[in-house]
Amino acid sequence: MTPQRRAGLGTNQEAVRRHNLGTLLRHVHGAGQISRAELTSLMGLNRSTIAGLVGELESLGISEHATPMGGARQGAGRPSAGVRIAAGGPYVIAVDLGVDRAVVARVGLGGRVLARAQAPVHSHGEAWQVGASVAALIRQVVEDAPPAAALVGIGISVPGLVRRRDGLVRLAPNLEWHDVSFGGIVLAALGLDVPVSLANDADLGALAEHVRGAGVGVDDLIYVSGNVGVGAGVIAGGVRLEGAGGYAGEVGHLRFNPQGRPCHCGNLGCWETEVGAHAIAEAIDCPPDKVAQLDEVLEGFTEPPRELRATGTALGHGLASIVNTFNPRLIVLGGYFRSLYPLVGAEVDSGLADRALPAPLESVTLVLPALGSDSALLGAAEIALEPLFVDPVAALGAALVDVRSRLAG
Amino acid sequence: MTPQRRAGLGTNQEAVRRHNLGTLLRHVHGAGQISRAELTSLMGLNRSTIAGLVGELESLGISEHATPMGGARQGAGRPSAGVRIAAGGPYVIAVDLGVDRAVVARVGLGGRVLARAQAPVHSHGEAWQVGASVAALIRQVVEDAPPAAALVGIGISVPGLVRRRDGLVRLAPNLEWHDVSFGGIVLAALGLDVPVSLANDADLGALAEHVRGAGVGVDDLIYVSGNVGVGAGVIAGGVRLEGAGGYAGEVGHLRFNPQGRPCHCGNLGCWETEVGAHAIAEAIDCPPDKVAQLDEVLEGFTEPPRELRATGTALGHGLASIVNTFNPRLIVLGGYFRSLYPLVGAEVDSGLADRALPAPLESVTLVLPALGSDSALLGAAEIALEPLFVDPVAALGAALVDVRSRLAG
Ligand SMILES: [Zn+2]
Ligand SMILES: [Zn+2]
Repeated sequence: MTPQRRAGLGTNQEAVRRHNLGTLLRHVHGAGQISRAELTSLMGLNRSTIAGLVGELESLGISEHATPMGGARQGAGRPSAGVRIAAGGPYVIAVDLGVDRAVVARVGLGGRVLARAQAPVHSHGEAWQVGASVAALIRQVVEDAPPAAALVGIGISVPGLVRRRDGLVRLAPNLEWHDVSFGGIVLAALGLDVPVSLANDADLGALAEHVRGAGVGVDDLIYVSGNVGVGAGVIAGGVRLEGAGGYAGEVGHLRFNPQGRPCHCGNLGCWETEVGAHAIAEAIDCPPDKVAQLDEVLEGFTEPPRELRATGTALGHGLASIVNTFNPRLIVLGGYFRSLYPLVGAEVDSGLADRALPAPLESVTLVLPALGSDSALLGAAEIALEPLFVDPVAALGAALVDVRSRLAG
Repeated sequence: MTPQRRAGLGTNQEAVRRHNLGTLLRHVHGAGQISRAELTSLMGLNRSTIAGLVGELESLGISEHATPMGGARQGAGRPSAGVRIAAGGPYVIAVDLGVDRAVVARVGLGGRVLARAQAPVHSHGEAWQVGASVAALIRQVVEDAPPAAALVGIGISVPGLVRRRDGLVRLAPNLEWHDVSFGGIVLAALGLDVPVSLANDADLGALAEHVRGAGVGVDDLIYVSGNVGVGAGVIAGGVRLEGAGGYAGEVGHLRFNPQGRPCHCGNLGCWETEVGAHAIAEAIDCPPDKVAQLDEVLEGFTEPPRELRATGTALGHGLASIVNTFNPRLIVLGGYFRSLYPLVGAEVDSGLADRALPAPLESVTLVLPALGSDSALLGAAEIALEPLFVDPVAALGAALVDVRSRLAG
């Protein structure tokens, strides 16, 4: 064994400790509040190791002591002391970039939204203009952040294809963006240097619903998002399905009706041409300038309009292809599908039942997002928080404090 | 901390050691032969721990000392002693159940086929008759197994949907099977009690090509299998995509042409109705009784027949849906697609390029299986070997020796 190797081993033990610290924080983040006994059991570490890790998180200002939550879940004996996320601790900025508006939130550990702001964006605006709007919203949400609280990073949800390697927006069809470094644009507009992560909106919706929404504890779920275009985020075996470049889940461009309408991708009759916002708007005579607010338009119906029945059936038929392909336990219908499903649920269900294979059909359930319209926003927070769960010490070392005064300059 | 908890910790250390032993064996299995220095580096354990684990594998009769493979790959210093799979060690039985024939092999660690046999099966035969044929083939391939060698288990590849939980064959359309306990039938016919694992043929093709075929080191690959019906096995992020019940990958039933031909699943115009064996046989006037040997029929063509061009285009168009959905790095074309692709490669490639989104298209490659027609067979061996990589000591404890004389009774 060479001396380098020995040094490597020493570093490795420190890496293991930091990994454990991050994993413990992930548990506290997921649960909001958790007892030391539960942490001991979840992590397979002994009580004194857990106590040491908890003490370190407290000294970093991340967690704090919580009064015991009662002994019922721990069986006999004294109730175990609890750990919860500290107020004033590190936070991230989450950005949900839509086709017509941007929502920005300051989000703490535990998925707590501490401040939020939103503004319209012009769908044909230049990326730098959109970046300036987003930067202005970020300035708003950090206004009341405690000066000592650390900004860990920025997470951005994008309605398009995002290259995993570097976050380049390869294509955002409804923003008319091709190969846009939107993360760099936002940082430039802010004049800040913090970690920034971008991902596809449906992928982030799936992530957030898995961590703290309708899919907690569900290892195989699909979040199908109607957001002008149609896409899916996939959790398979408990892990995000990303594909080689990060582009997996473009189910809006599944071949659906080769005699159908032209799709912006160049094909005829993609699924999106039947269940995308433009197709639905056409079916219900919604004016084109309202397409981006299709969810609100759909919510305005008190009775299900006949014109939407075919859309419901087409949604079910397309979901059948998804069920045959992925065999999910749960399908979460996000975006404007949240408003569509209550109107045409019967058509969706029977369209799915007619076309899916019996074996994967029997274990799948359709649900609406538990996080409402915030799934992608909270997913953006999750990817920005992620460095804290890998190595909290390093993530805090790279984080910024006193952000407001830095932005003022 | 309760006494039970302390006992649990002690057991945990033993579990970690056995886990390490299994992981080391997985590396030797994958590489065939590997140096101790490489194992030290791959596993992040120190040299003496590796030496202890290697010694234990040798004493179990699984591996043996190999002469050093030269120092070039280890940089300066003495070449490190090697480890390789021992002859006469544990083995599994792999069964590739096709629509018209069964192939059975005795396979050792390292994926070595030690004996093989095959026989026709009647596609409309009862499951117990097919089970009897398979049992007879198993008797053949164990005939020359060393009496001391241990049979770890049986792995069976099935052209249909297999429930992960218990291996029940939910549906094998071309065998006309519904809810068949084929594993139990084979064990009953043998009169043996050994672990038996079943899985879908395309899933196993993907697994074998990932472990030792065209997809070694490729984390995102799809194996698309033409085996009368059409299905896919998916490796995503280095892990098999199984879905909630084990049924993921039924891409043969992706909606393709809703004005098309009826599919056995009850829908119109599934992809399988255009690129399945029956559709191809019809296009080239192949008699129905030859459909199960479509690969051989296709290999008989010296010139690509015009009639297959539309099939090639349809294959490309369907692959585009797969590329948009999964963003794979590699698509392996197995089953009769191995024989089809050389005839209509240009049509497949242009069909794919026309319909896939540019971002996922740019990083995907189509290849033929490196394992030829043995992908599913070797994948069946992999799932049967799997217990050895989880806990070799327990797996050998559950294995059978002197199998031939047990079968003779
Ligand atoms: Zn399209
Ligand atoms: Zn079908």
